[in-house]
Amino acid sequence: MRFEVTTLGTGAALPARGRFPSAQLLNANERLYLIDCGEGTQERLRQAEVNFNRIGRILISHLHGDHYLGLMGLISSMHLQGRTEPLDVHGPAELKEVIDLQLRVSRTWLRFPLRFHAVAPVNGGPVFTDDRVDVTALALKHRIPTTGYRFTEHPAPRKLRLDKLGLVPHYLRNAVKAGEDLVLPDGTRVPNAELTHDPLPPRSYAYCSDTAFTPELVPFLAEVDLLYHEATFTDALAARAKETFHSTARQAATIAREARVKRLLLGHFSSRYKTNDGLLAEARSVFPDTLLAEEGRTFAI
Amino acid sequence: MRFEVTTLGTGAALPARGRFPSAQLLNANERLYLIDCGEGTQERLRQAEVNFNRIGRILISHLHGDHYLGLMGLISSMHLQGRTEPLDVHGPAELKEVIDLQLRVSRTWLRFPLRFHAVAPVNGGPVFTDDRVDVTALALKHRIPTTGYRFTEHPAPRKLRLDKLGLVPHYLRNAVKAGEDLVLPDGTRVPNAELTHDPLPPRSYAYCSDTAFTPELVPFLAEVDLLYHEATFTDALAARAKETFHSTARQAATIAREARVKRLLLGHFSSRYKTNDGLLAEARSVFPDTLLAEEGRTFAI
Repeated sequence: MRFEVTTLGTGAALPARGRFPSAQLLNANERLYLIDCGEGTQERLRQAEVNFNRIGRILISHLHGDHYLGLMGLISSMHLQGRTEPLDVHGPAELKEVIDLQLRVSRTWLRFPLRFHAVAPVNGGPVFTDDRVDVTALALKHRIPTTGYRFTEHPAPRKLRLDKLGLVPHYLRNAVKAGEDLVLPDGTRVPNAELTHDPLPPRSYAYCSDTAFTPELVPFLAEVDLLYHEATFTDALAARAKETFHSTARQAATIAREARVKRLLLGHFSSRYKTNDGLLAEARSVFPDTLLAEEGRTFAI
Repeated sequence: MRFEVTTLGTGAALPARGRFPSAQLLNANERLYLIDCGEGTQERLRQAEVNFNRIGRILISHLHGDHYLGLMGLISSMHLQGRTEPLDVHGPAELKEVIDLQLRVSRTWLRFPLRFHAVAPVNGGPVFTDDRVDVTALALKHRIPTTGYRFTEHPAPRKLRLDKLGLVPHYLRNAVKAGEDLVLPDGTRVPNAELTHDPLPPRSYAYCSDTAFTPELVPFLAEVDLLYHEATFTDALAARAKETFHSTARQAATIAREARVKRLLLGHFSSRYKTNDGLLAEARSVFPDTLLAEEGRTFAI
């Protein structure tokens, strides 16, 4: 089953040519979630040939412009394209004021239901559960309230052992996949463990942007398959990172190592860096399995 | 003296690939004015290699998203780049609410004064006068209050005739250029008309987007050097144009002909048109001196 993220924008607050503000598209078995929506995100989605109306939910981390100023344009385009399916938007409570005011001044009455859900930056707090994923909040530390998101797949059903397949009548297969023992017509009980293999463990993705170095996050990021963590600066600018509530590449990698994540993905690069090689090298010295986000690139989780 | 406009975005509400929402940059003798500011305008300005901080004034026609959703991002970038010079923003009164709310939710205190000036869509109403231009309002007819803008250069001083130059003492030249007669030491009066030529007449530019066909505008557009008029549809969709308070290419050209403008520039093209040749041909059948706006193209006024 597909579980992957496409980084649409990897820049920090001041966009540099070729880099765009934060936005990511998560695909969980063909259900699409947009995470943050900086200015121009609809253009990035068009370039990635994504039909806007396949996006069912949008999650906004915080109300700095580079994380949400593309939201109204995207909502407006969905409306003009005739969307009728509901759109769920998760974000800070004040985002609803911004959306409502902008709809009011443009005298727009959306053709589809926009369901707004306020989020709070509380570690482990539930955000939503649907048929693909459980999503919980991460308490990022930034200049304004900022929520990260952790997406976890639902546990897959147990896998029927091919050599025992004939033993299990078709109408009982779902029960066995769900972990029940098999009771044969003669009363014999066959333990589930003899009939099934463990499924692959549920995969998980965590999104942490923007945040100061926050070790309190570690237990909530434990063993995620892919951690996106901002790395606005290199260690040479650690003081600047602290002052602006951002992280250095070394700090992002330290979080990844402590949380024993599988892979680390860096983004939110300061426009001062012409290349991000320095950020990558710094992070890899602490956590080797580190990658750089790139505009339009897709990463399997 | 330079007097020219660069069309940064020529699309209608639903952006099509390669076309961007409305924004124009007017250069009046190296003073820059931004007219409308759709999503992504800061990216277009970067592509045109325009230093944002050279823009002293921004004029917004109305609060449909494709005309103003790039404003907050641009203001934010000016702030992050350390701007200290004031920025004057002209637009509908409700725009101030939108700006104030978005600054509040991002906890941003701008480093430069943002001076907001509410405009009303009243034909001929004064908008501002500075050392380059007089700007007056145009009462467009759209679904929400919409103001067009007419920019007129100040009259240039009279031109001293080269063959009479020696006659006029240096310290009196400005008075003669301003139209005064020359009084020689012996009391002889030399009429100004013998010493000077008429200067070039002041040039003017009018911006009309978005609007239904509005003949009431004609006297206020009379003889402008360049008229930008929206042409969202061709005549085949005249009913759709009427319903959505937009114009067809033929209607735009009719306004241009009736107002005896020098040249007509079309824009705000519906995303349904893959090429704009049909719009151009239709307009030229009524008003031959018609041009099509293009992303990033500059037109002398």
